[in-house]
Amino acid sequence: MLYPTPVAKLIDSFSKLPGIGIKTATRLAFHTISMTDEEVNEFAKNLLAAKRELTYCSICGNLTDEDPCAICQDQTRDGSLILVVEASKDVSAMEKIQEYKGRYHVLHGLISPMQGIGPDDINLKSLINRLMDDQVQEVIIATNATADGEATSMYVSRLLKPAGIKVTRLARGLAVGSDIEYADEVTLLRAIENRTEL
Amino acid sequence: MLYPTPVAKLIDSFSKLPGIGIKTATRLAFHTISMTDEEVNEFAKNLLAAKRELTYCSICGNLTDEDPCAICQDQTRDGSLILVVEASKDVSAMEKIQEYKGRYHVLHGLISPMQGIGPDDINLKSLINRLMDDQVQEVIIATNATADGEATSMYVSRLLKPAGIKVTRLARGLAVGSDIEYADEVTLLRAIENRTEL
Repeated sequence: MLYPTPVAKLIDSFSKLPGIGIKTATRLAFHTISMTDEEVNEFAKNLLAAKRELTYCSICGNLTDEDPCAICQDQTRDGSLILVVEASKDVSAMEKIQEYKGRYHVLHGLISPMQGIGPDDINLKSLINRLMDDQVQEVIIATNATADGEATSMYVSRLLKPAGIKVTRLARGLAVGSDIEYADEVTLLRAIENRTEL
Repeated sequence: MLYPTPVAKLIDSFSKLPGIGIKTATRLAFHTISMTDEEVNEFAKNLLAAKRELTYCSICGNLTDEDPCAICQDQTRDGSLILVVEASKDVSAMEKIQEYKGRYHVLHGLISPMQGIGPDDINLKSLINRLMDDQVQEVIIATNATADGEATSMYVSRLLKPAGIKVTRLARGLAVGSDIEYADEVTLLRAIENRTEL
C-alpha cells in the first residue's frame, strides 16, 4: 500500500488534468492535504460552480454565467463588427488588449477535413442568423494561423462575401519582439506580402 | 471583464497550487469546464475526502485514513527496526522499493537552526517513547542528504546512542546510473570513504 486510499484517489484526479503527470499530481495532492479546510472547501466549491453555473451565450456562443453574455448585453459595444474566434479562450485573449469594441462569435471548433469536422459541426449557422439583421457590416475572422484555422477562415469568407458583407482576417507577419533570423519561411513570406508603408 | 466570475474563481484556485502559474491555471480551468459532470463531481469529492478522511498515525506520524496506520497495524513487519523520515512522501518512496519490512517514524520536518526549528518542533518525542519498550534494536535515519537533513541525523544519533540503540543512516555515494564526471565533490568524497569490497 503506497498511499492511503483518499490520497491515491486525489492523485488520480489531478493526474487526469492536461500536462499533469503522476509526479506533479502527487506533489499537488500532498500540497492539498497541507492546505487549510477553508482553502480546500473553496477549491471544491469553485470546481463545482464552474461546471454548474457556466453556460454558452445563446447569441455569440461565448462561455458565460448569464445569458445573453455580458458582451452581448453591453449596448456601448459596436454591433456592426463581429470577430469570429475558435474558442472562448480566444475571446479572453482579445479582451485583454482592451482595444476591440465590437462583438464576438465563438465557433467552438474549426472545420477540419482531416478529422471529419465539417461546417455543420461548428457554431456557424447562428453566425449566419446574426447577419440577417442589417446592422453587421464587417466580420473579422480571428481563427488560429494553423491549417484548420486557415481552412475555416476561407470557408467563412466565401460563405459571407456573396451576401455583401466585408470579411477581413487578422494580419499575418512577424510577432512583435521576434527575430527575423528565427522566423519560419511562411511567416516571412506573409510579412513581405503584407508589408505596410512607413 | 476577462472571464465570467466562476471561471475567474476557478483559475484563482488552480493558481494557488505550487508550480501552477496563471497560464497553466487558465488552461486547467478551461479543461475542467469541458469535463463531464461526473468527472468534476468526482474531483471535488476527492479533494474534500482527502482533507476530511486523512489523519496522522498516533504511533508513527504517517499520513493515514485509519489510526493506527496500516503499516503500524501489520504484525508481519519487523518491530525491531524503525526508519526515520522527514515526511509521509518519504514513506511512500521507501514502500515503492518493496524491500524494507520494518516500521517507520515520520518527523514532519527537520531540525533547522537557520529557520529556528528545534528538536521540540518536530515529531521526535514520540520516537523516544517508542524506544522505551525493548523491541526496537536499530533506528535507520533516512533524512534527505541536505544540511538540515544531516543536522537532524546527527542530533537523533547523539540522542539515541547513549541508550544503547544501534543508529544507522542511508549510504552516501554515487547514484545508480550517474556519471563520475558529473558527480559533485562531496558525493565523490563520500563514495571513496564508504567504498565497499567486491
